[in-house]
Amino acid sequence: MIVRCWMVLSAALIGVAALGPVRAQSPDPLPSWNDNSVKLNIIDFVARVTTEGSADYVDPQDRVATFDNDGTLWVEQPLYTSFVFIIDRVKAVSNQHPDWKKKEPFKSALDGNTKKLLSYGETGAVALTAATHSGMTTVEFNDIASNWLKTVRHPRFKRPYTDLTYKPMIELLDYLRANGFITFIVSGGGVEFMRAYTEQCYGVPPWQVVGSSGKTQFRMWDASPTLVKLPDLLFFDDGPGKAEGINHYIGRQPIFAFGNSNGDKEMLEWTANCAGVCFMGLVHHDDAVREYAYGPDSDVGTFPVALMEQAKSNGWNVVSMKDDWNVIFSWGKPSL
Amino acid sequence: MIVRCWMVLSAALIGVAALGPVRAQSPDPLPSWNDNSVKLNIIDFVARVTTEGSADYVDPQDRVATFDNDGTLWVEQPLYTSFVFIIDRVKAVSNQHPDWKKKEPFKSALDGNTKKLLSYGETGAVALTAATHSGMTTVEFNDIASNWLKTVRHPRFKRPYTDLTYKPMIELLDYLRANGFITFIVSGGGVEFMRAYTEQCYGVPPWQVVGSSGKTQFRMWDASPTLVKLPDLLFFDDGPGKAEGINHYIGRQPIFAFGNSNGDKEMLEWTANCAGVCFMGLVHHDDAVREYAYGPDSDVGTFPVALMEQAKSNGWNVVSMKDDWNVIFSWGKPSL
Repeated sequence: MIVRCWMVLSAALIGVAALGPVRAQSPDPLPSWNDNSVKLNIIDFVARVTTEGSADYVDPQDRVATFDNDGTLWVEQPLYTSFVFIIDRVKAVSNQHPDWKKKEPFKSALDGNTKKLLSYGETGAVALTAATHSGMTTVEFNDIASNWLKTVRHPRFKRPYTDLTYKPMIELLDYLRANGFITFIVSGGGVEFMRAYTEQCYGVPPWQVVGSSGKTQFRMWDASPTLVKLPDLLFFDDGPGKAEGINHYIGRQPIFAFGNSNGDKEMLEWTANCAGVCFMGLVHHDDAVREYAYGPDSDVGTFPVALMEQAKSNGWNVVSMKDDWNVIFSWGKPSL
Repeated sequence: MIVRCWMVLSAALIGVAALGPVRAQSPDPLPSWNDNSVKLNIIDFVARVTTEGSADYVDPQDRVATFDNDGTLWVEQPLYTSFVFIIDRVKAVSNQHPDWKKKEPFKSALDGNTKKLLSYGETGAVALTAATHSGMTTVEFNDIASNWLKTVRHPRFKRPYTDLTYKPMIELLDYLRANGFITFIVSGGGVEFMRAYTEQCYGVPPWQVVGSSGKTQFRMWDASPTLVKLPDLLFFDDGPGKAEGINHYIGRQPIFAFGNSNGDKEMLEWTANCAGVCFMGLVHHDDAVREYAYGPDSDVGTFPVALMEQAKSNGWNVVSMKDDWNVIFSWGKPSL
């Protein structure tokens, strides 16, 4: 593990986490959360599903919690981090592809025209990813991603992206695991890019990370087995793909899910379909001072009015970043 | 969980298992194994990677162990169980497809001509699976598979297939987990079929089961979210696909792998490529009295001479079922 993260999980905590219905170690398991309704709802939900003999009790192996990544666990503005990485990769290899200067979506990537780039949607993202995330081995790709995460800085906060994970959400991941939950990431981002940092930053091992992916091919290379990344899409994990991905990769109905945008709608609907009690949450970015304020009109992390109405009418929990979190980032800068 | 298994993991054992380098609870952690070289090699390997301060020490989160299923964890003769299930599904729905009587590979399935059926290889298996594992929801499919596992009996042993798991291998799974390993199944079988019994029989949760799979589609059905199984292949997890699947679904290099046939070759090669010490094992079915004896000439679970030579020259561990296991099945019938 190579990237630097402020939140490092100790082996001791991992041990405690697996023991099941152990209560939180400190008087306040979520100190970065203000004592508003979302925090109280989380604590109430966890108490209900972990109290043996309660009608809402859920066995530990069924305590599946799924989290979106971009905008839910770490910053996604001004552009999804995985997209920033992809654009940097386009630039890094563009001298081998002179035609990209005139060919979309490569042209927009090279020009830094992110608005136009995002307008190409899934097709554009897949085309850029296929062209830049293939032709190398999985080991080479991991080195490229890890090095990028170590060296590149966020344009506004001037810190590595891995410093810009949300402290309240990392507390929530820890709190759930301390209560026997199994925590998964279910993100539209590339799975191999995420796996370069998710274990160190979030305490989530690679097999609990669901994301978009390309195919690989096994080849013997100088008598050594190698996996070569191919330019073919294997799985696109966004929107309806998140519900499909939960079934395919996790194979169990979640009882807890957190997202922040329209791409998480189906994951939340799928979770809300659970047999017993379940918890659905959405992070609303309404804090332009400490982070960003955006919603229905944003090209990145779109949170449409209809989703807000759906959340309200179904009793889903909407986090006001401004009001509900007393700290934003996990690198520990004092709250403004 | 609906199928009956002789081996039920207690919650207490799961708790202990996650604590990391805890030594086995009993004087002999593998009582169904005779004290021959494979057993001694397993115990030696586990001691080396779990002894802190040792040059071969491996952190618990890196103790990834992968197991083939058919022929490695449970019986695969006279035909892979998932194939028996598929053939039964072909028969169950054949009245809706009168053309199948004359159309291969359906004709061979309906005629019970398994030799001819197996000659169609991956293409045949995919065609049969696509036709019979689609058009229903994932919940409906799980009900069909679970009911089949409860009611169908093995032709020779007259017991549910879930009784025909191998006791020595279940002890091995337990032993590895008690020593902090994370155990995965990596099988050519259908992942949703396996997930209907793997947690109860092997103590392996659904997200640690890698298998072949079809696509699904998220649909709202009477305002309820539903996943419909489609007749399109998503991933074929056999041969080179096992190494690709380990990377895609697990995302970490195994240090321990067990298989029994040519379809496990690349998984073992991939495992043997690990940075430190690693353990590769193959079950050789040489016990016609208690189970089956087969190898290079078998259509099911082919173990070619070249693989045996590769195992010997590379120091991989080959289990003689006859000599190394004093009990075969987990339902506890006394050893002959």
